[in-house]
Amino acid sequence: MGAKTTYKHTVDTQNVDFTLRATVDSICQAIFNTAGVDAMGRGFGLDSLSENKRSWVLSRFAVEMDYRPKQYADYGVTTWVNTNTRMLSTRNFELHNSEGECFARSVSQWCMIDFERRVPINLEEMYDAFREHMCDCPSPCEPPRKVVGVVPTQQVVHKVVYSDIDFNCHVNTMRYIGLMIDMLPIDYMREERVFRLDIHFMHECRLGQTLTVGYEQRENLSLFEVKADDGTVACRASIEWR
Amino acid sequence: MGAKTTYKHTVDTQNVDFTLRATVDSICQAIFNTAGVDAMGRGFGLDSLSENKRSWVLSRFAVEMDYRPKQYADYGVTTWVNTNTRMLSTRNFELHNSEGECFARSVSQWCMIDFERRVPINLEEMYDAFREHMCDCPSPCEPPRKVVGVVPTQQVVHKVVYSDIDFNCHVNTMRYIGLMIDMLPIDYMREERVFRLDIHFMHECRLGQTLTVGYEQRENLSLFEVKADDGTVACRASIEWR
Repeated sequence: MGAKTTYKHTVDTQNVDFTLRATVDSICQAIFNTAGVDAMGRGFGLDSLSENKRSWVLSRFAVEMDYRPKQYADYGVTTWVNTNTRMLSTRNFELHNSEGECFARSVSQWCMIDFERRVPINLEEMYDAFREHMCDCPSPCEPPRKVVGVVPTQQVVHKVVYSDIDFNCHVNTMRYIGLMIDMLPIDYMREERVFRLDIHFMHECRLGQTLTVGYEQRENLSLFEVKADDGTVACRASIEWR
Repeated sequence: MGAKTTYKHTVDTQNVDFTLRATVDSICQAIFNTAGVDAMGRGFGLDSLSENKRSWVLSRFAVEMDYRPKQYADYGVTTWVNTNTRMLSTRNFELHNSEGECFARSVSQWCMIDFERRVPINLEEMYDAFREHMCDCPSPCEPPRKVVGVVPTQQVVHKVVYSDIDFNCHVNTMRYIGLMIDMLPIDYMREERVFRLDIHFMHECRLGQTLTVGYEQRENLSLFEVKADDGTVACRASIEWR
């Protein structure tokens, strides 16, 4: 069985907002970087997958944060994979401050695609390669929720530009998160708030497309839906303020 | 006399564009982080200045890049201050790859302001504090040029949001650079090109303001002008493609 592994991060100057605390998207970036490095070290990272024209694609993601750490703070991201179904691999994360206290928990679900044939890979076929890396520990929080029925009351139009895209020329995950958080009243970020973010991805968006980011506030829930110009839903997300 | 000091940086996953090379704004961020850390170590960083209600404000900036380093590449940023006039302090930078080859050069000019009284500080008054940190070495490239006479043929409107602002609630420098580069034809970033960027700042922009980013291509010059909604020019910039 595989073990949990911990990677160190620091809140650098470029990771903070006007309150001098880490932005949500910079913490998510640290989580995804950790996933990438850990998978690479275990032989199923993007580097070795791409040799077979395969890639991991993030399907759903949830993160709970008790607070956002301050500028220059060190923190650790501990990660482990505990479930592989036919279509989804579940990777978990726990974030600890330098005193060892857990301040954030995350569960991510990934599918593997053949990017030439544009089809998903049955992960059960790869079970032998994965077995030794699976860790028999429960997820640290509820798995990502499905977000439905968003009825936007505010909308922002965003043309996908150079700085939004990743090496696949798709809008990158942190950019979606950033676009959504930019729509919130500024007080949600000015004050320290405990929250849970759920996001699920349906369609990739590309350079030159025009996105409509819709936002609805429903009591303690901030709901988001990103649509492409052809009407397809790119992703939906919710932030539950606790 | 002061000496040149070198700080190490790495091109992380979040610093690259779709070509897997460092973005211009991530390299500029490394340059400004280096300036911040070096000034702090010498006792005239933002930490000690703020105790006297003072701050450094970037007035003009130039950077020349022979190429943008690849993902995971290590590089060094060497910095030194060589001139203080009454109004401007000049800080220089040379960037070297892990083989020690210089691949970028930069000159920045800063003024110091009293942020309560909103007035500039005469740097000659502080000469005694600066003297031991001045380095008798020439700047590595031509100082920042004044950019005038931009006649935009394309414009993009951008509302200043949460993710654009720094701890002063002003639009941060990297965001201006990012907004301008996002207007270029994508081929300028797809291919490796030698360039020089000059930017000079006139007015600060704040959360909630609406910016108009104008772009004009004049032979090998990309020219930019950012205006606030009250008509004031926030900054002008040029990129010379060599």
